[in-house]
Amino acid sequence: MVGIIELIMGILKTTIKDVSITPLREIADDRGSVLHMLRCDADEFTQFGECYLSEVVPHAIKAWKKHTIQTQNIAVPVGKIRLVIFDDRKKTNFQDELMILELGRPEAYQRVKIPPGIWYGFTCISKTAALIVNCADHPHNQSESLLRDVNDPYIPYSWIENKKIK
Amino acid sequence: MVGIIELIMGILKTTIKDVSITPLREIADDRGSVLHMLRCDADEFTQFGECYLSEVVPHAIKAWKKHTIQTQNIAVPVGKIRLVIFDDRKKTNFQDELMILELGRPEAYQRVKIPPGIWYGFTCISKTAALIVNCADHPHNQSESLLRDVNDPYIPYSWIENKKIK
Repeated sequence: MVGIIELIMGILKTTIKDVSITPLREIADDRGSVLHMLRCDADEFTQFGECYLSEVVPHAIKAWKKHTIQTQNIAVPVGKIRLVIFDDRKKTNFQDELMILELGRPEAYQRVKIPPGIWYGFTCISKTAALIVNCADHPHNQSESLLRDVNDPYIPYSWIENKKIK
Repeated sequence: MVGIIELIMGILKTTIKDVSITPLREIADDRGSVLHMLRCDADEFTQFGECYLSEVVPHAIKAWKKHTIQTQNIAVPVGKIRLVIFDDRKKTNFQDELMILELGRPEAYQRVKIPPGIWYGFTCISKTAALIVNCADHPHNQSESLLRDVNDPYIPYSWIENKKIK
């Protein structure tokens, strides 16, 4: 994983401005785990807009999307995904414009905060379907999001090669 | 399913006071479905306390629990569960004291609201682990919940026979 620079209050600040990663607790139980996601008293919580889930079947890719208002707070309780984030905000002094993360239990059960203004997409990298939980700060409104084709050359990332394209 | 009496604004009012069932939308997609859960502008929404997930492995039972403050808003995006609710509040004019529900996609992707003061428990009835999402109105606080043993005779329900015991 590229670009983590700072750990404050258990929150990993990344080199993409306002993108952060918070390790989440899995409370093991023979009957099935309890998995933390988001509390109203968490440092990263601002407001509740909508909770929804996104399933991704093996090898499928859901990309690219950018919100203009909504902040995403996502975690992966089932399966594994690769999450790719691309920052084209010229006004920020970003160090990295591309971030590639693998999310899923047990080693990467984390909440990732993606602010508006950043492109992101994800693919399922587990053998069975992955499930993403999102607690966004605004309810879904189609007019506030932008889409680009999964292979749009504007975004310098190859899903097939899983690497940055220069 | 026992005890549904009234449909208002898409919300099924049940014969246990303040327990309600809201059908949720699954937006089918070849890459994996998007599953609605809870929006801040939903009729049933009051406030956000905590979102967490509870996994239940096949045949496991998580029961019994009663909250004194927290309202549960649960849905089952993965696998299937049987949810059993027992109402021993003497002050309400309940018609049914026991409610048995089966939750899970595609036919029962629903949000169930369980107010404080009611016993509930659940078991996984799918071949693979089920996952419950809960958007509760208060964050978890162990001091506001009560527990009873899964086979406590106080609650007139048999998990083995799946029926009310008189």
